[in-house]
Amino acid sequence: MSAIRHALTTKREDDFAAWYQEVISAADLAEESGVRGCMVIKPWGYGIWERIQRLMDDRIKAAGVQNCYFPIFIPLGNFTREAEHVEGFAKEMAVVTHHRLIADGKGGLIPDPEARLEEPLVVRPTSETIIGDAMARWIQSWRDLPLLTNQWANVVRWEMRTRMFLRTSEFLWQEGHTAHATREDALAETHRALEMYRACAEEDLALPVIAGEKPENERFPGAVETWSIEAMMQDGKALQAGTSHYLGTNFAHAAGIQYQDKEGGQQYCHTTSWGVSTRLIGGIIMVHGDDDGLRVPPAIAPHQIVIIPMLREAPEDAALLAYCDELKQMLLRETALGEKLRVLLDSTPGKAAAKRWDWVRKGAPIIVEVGPRDMADGKVAVLQRVSLWNVENGKPAFQFLGREDFAGQAGQMLEYTQQALYNEARERRDANITRGITSMDVVADHFADGVKYPGWVEVQWSKPTGAALDKVVEQLKALKLTIRNVPLGGAPADGACIFTGDAAVERIFLARAY
Amino acid sequence: MSAIRHALTTKREDDFAAWYQEVISAADLAEESGVRGCMVIKPWGYGIWERIQRLMDDRIKAAGVQNCYFPIFIPLGNFTREAEHVEGFAKEMAVVTHHRLIADGKGGLIPDPEARLEEPLVVRPTSETIIGDAMARWIQSWRDLPLLTNQWANVVRWEMRTRMFLRTSEFLWQEGHTAHATREDALAETHRALEMYRACAEEDLALPVIAGEKPENERFPGAVETWSIEAMMQDGKALQAGTSHYLGTNFAHAAGIQYQDKEGGQQYCHTTSWGVSTRLIGGIIMVHGDDDGLRVPPAIAPHQIVIIPMLREAPEDAALLAYCDELKQMLLRETALGEKLRVLLDSTPGKAAAKRWDWVRKGAPIIVEVGPRDMADGKVAVLQRVSLWNVENGKPAFQFLGREDFAGQAGQMLEYTQQALYNEARERRDANITRGITSMDVVADHFADGVKYPGWVEVQWSKPTGAALDKVVEQLKALKLTIRNVPLGGAPADGACIFTGDAAVERIFLARAY
Ligand SMILES: [Zn+2]
Ligand SMILES: [Zn+2]
Repeated sequence: MSAIRHALTTKREDDFAAWYQEVISAADLAEESGVRGCMVIKPWGYGIWERIQRLMDDRIKAAGVQNCYFPIFIPLGNFTREAEHVEGFAKEMAVVTHHRLIADGKGGLIPDPEARLEEPLVVRPTSETIIGDAMARWIQSWRDLPLLTNQWANVVRWEMRTRMFLRTSEFLWQEGHTAHATREDALAETHRALEMYRACAEEDLALPVIAGEKPENERFPGAVETWSIEAMMQDGKALQAGTSHYLGTNFAHAAGIQYQDKEGGQQYCHTTSWGVSTRLIGGIIMVHGDDDGLRVPPAIAPHQIVIIPMLREAPEDAALLAYCDELKQMLLRETALGEKLRVLLDSTPGKAAAKRWDWVRKGAPIIVEVGPRDMADGKVAVLQRVSLWNVENGKPAFQFLGREDFAGQAGQMLEYTQQALYNEARERRDANITRGITSMDVVADHFADGVKYPGWVEVQWSKPTGAALDKVVEQLKALKLTIRNVPLGGAPADGACIFTGDAAVERIFLARAY
Repeated sequence: MSAIRHALTTKREDDFAAWYQEVISAADLAEESGVRGCMVIKPWGYGIWERIQRLMDDRIKAAGVQNCYFPIFIPLGNFTREAEHVEGFAKEMAVVTHHRLIADGKGGLIPDPEARLEEPLVVRPTSETIIGDAMARWIQSWRDLPLLTNQWANVVRWEMRTRMFLRTSEFLWQEGHTAHATREDALAETHRALEMYRACAEEDLALPVIAGEKPENERFPGAVETWSIEAMMQDGKALQAGTSHYLGTNFAHAAGIQYQDKEGGQQYCHTTSWGVSTRLIGGIIMVHGDDDGLRVPPAIAPHQIVIIPMLREAPEDAALLAYCDELKQMLLRETALGEKLRVLLDSTPGKAAAKRWDWVRKGAPIIVEVGPRDMADGKVAVLQRVSLWNVENGKPAFQFLGREDFAGQAGQMLEYTQQALYNEARERRDANITRGITSMDVVADHFADGVKYPGWVEVQWSKPTGAALDKVVEQLKALKLTIRNVPLGGAPADGACIFTGDAAVERIFLARAY
């Protein structure tokens, strides 16, 4: 066994936060823009987002939800109205107050005092209120229900401390907003969206998640129920990866979303909203990344296979390029995961080995190197990102395959990779969930400062509310813990509440979280 | 011949502007949002935009351009810098000055005076400067060139008078930004993008366009050359439907975009930018719409075929729905224009005739009605949107076809529709271009107030610059005319300049414009 020289300088176990930043930079996913809290998403990062969008959008459309586009600006008055209905109204937002710049006479520009807006506009932090206004216009009768809308958009929430993909002032997301005649219909939609998120996370992103209901204190302001999918990162922390809210008639009251029922009576609609964001990319990094960089699940990899010819800036290059292009054409006829393969022939200038490591750090699922000798033998050298190293000799684990053989197997290799990434994450998560703890002292020990990656613990509770819940939240906060969710389909409670000693009614996950 | 009762209340020839608004509302494309200058794009309008995006994005990616995402906010300082380099700097922008709302003590909210930004942020009107900053970071050597980026985004330009799709404060677009080592490379990219726009407009949107160079006075501020595609609306006015700019080294100077050449010297990059926007949808309406509503070219129709079962809220409905669903499944196996058919089975509540007219107004290319009698005969009633009326009897021109026969022909029908829409627009445009006018008096008569749809005139000019051009522009302005462009591949000049009497050097189009 030889020592492996990994492609990153920071190892996960040495400094997980620094490792995360290094992956983003080494995989060329995104960078600071110089604009407070806003990032530039670079081609490889944006390509992953485009894949997530495509797969999620297919699921959204298959459910009969229609995409729309709503204004980026929301009049201040909408928030006043919402603030009345919603406790815990968030106030950190970007506020537009002027519509013109003029010269300040000193070589600079300033907002023109003559062009002050009568009513300031807020850059949307979410579109509940403006979509609520539209729903109030669009819905007259029970025949107009359900109304199922979604938009893909940028939103802005002013953040003081930002971390790329996880918490940025501007981020990209989709927000579904639906209106229904009854509580039952709205709850069914809330669960449909939740299940859609679970399936997309697990099948497309290879992220094992736990779907469940958030406790009262973690609900979206104005929601009656908030559900989430929660994923475990490699440092054992939880990431809320998507949420689905049943809003009751609260937003319908605020915006006047009413319908005439079959008997001619006026009723308030029951509404839902649900969203996922570019935050998912942070989750993919922290679940699938390793000490050599990112590993992108094939379903969302912009390029699944990268072919690197070993060019010498010599006349022989032409034949080698032709050989590689033939391989590319063979691969383009193959499928994996229900889609045609996505293949890049990387013939940019530069040394093949340097390019190989770039693609390793970016996490392309399969890298194929082809030199003149491979060509002469009718072969190619194949490196699978999920089994990068030969642990015997500490070298990259190239497989030398006949070109046609590889083309025939490539689809299967990608499907194997997709499954392998999921399985690895699933096993790690399950191994890092501790069950059966019945006292908060043991919880405190479990999450003591010296313990590195304590993971999640599942405990039983009596679901206290109000002041009793506040006490629980305080107690957890002292341990830097939060309640993640009450898992759907979890085992029934059979013991005492870890907080109150009363009979428990359900099981919950406690964890540190992003 | 019987009188046809058209589906819209306003006819194009009676009031084109009112007709345009009626189409937007009758086809359910978009509506006013209540937020100044911003529109809500509704499902059918947004679905058309998604189709345009998909087809354009495929063309963009095929050219090796990579999508990124850049911040929505641009620091004020970037505009100061740009204002120095760019005359005619546009100043109407949305300016963010605060990052928090607080209660005003009177039940309302106000921007928190404590949360004033040190440097105001501008909501991007275009991203030249922020992408220029990124290019300056990303480009070091000639090996990094060309750098080919694009983003799909929302942008904001404060507009005093707005018109849906044509001029709104917020709109959606793509903006390509590229950097090159040489003038020649940048010019080649400028032309590649222009040709991509021409092809997408003509092949996908069925919009005949004239690609050409804008005159000096119509250049994008800071551009060395601005090229456009221009389409003729049914009122004879021109719509600039896309632009491609060669920016020389102006933006490279402003942002410091430099590269080391092969000899080790530092050089400024030559940059380009190019964009199309939701304005294209305005063009589609004004080129393809008729007195019955919109007609959507099949390549960009969200649903190409809509099947309407004549339901009676009775037990027999089940068999009819099954018959229609079988048709849908047959159609989904067919292709047109290189893609699988997009088919909707519209089983929403409501009378079939009302639904038919909704889809006529929306402009679905083919509408299929199926009643119990059709089912018994194994038939369907097919209505093609491009040949809606039987002019003999003034009734909808249904064709009764065997279900299987129709399924087998549907792809061809759609391809015929695509071509028919293009041909009709092309013939109308060509018939409304007047050539051979050699005096401005004749031009003035041609565009006199009583003349309804004067179209475009092609004249010859000596390409004056500076003050001489200003005079020409003034003269045209008095006639409400603008120079549209100098067509690529236009016939050579062979006469005198219509403005100066000097020898002409090229031909230009004069028109009224949106
Ligand atoms: Zn209320
Ligand atoms: Zn300069």
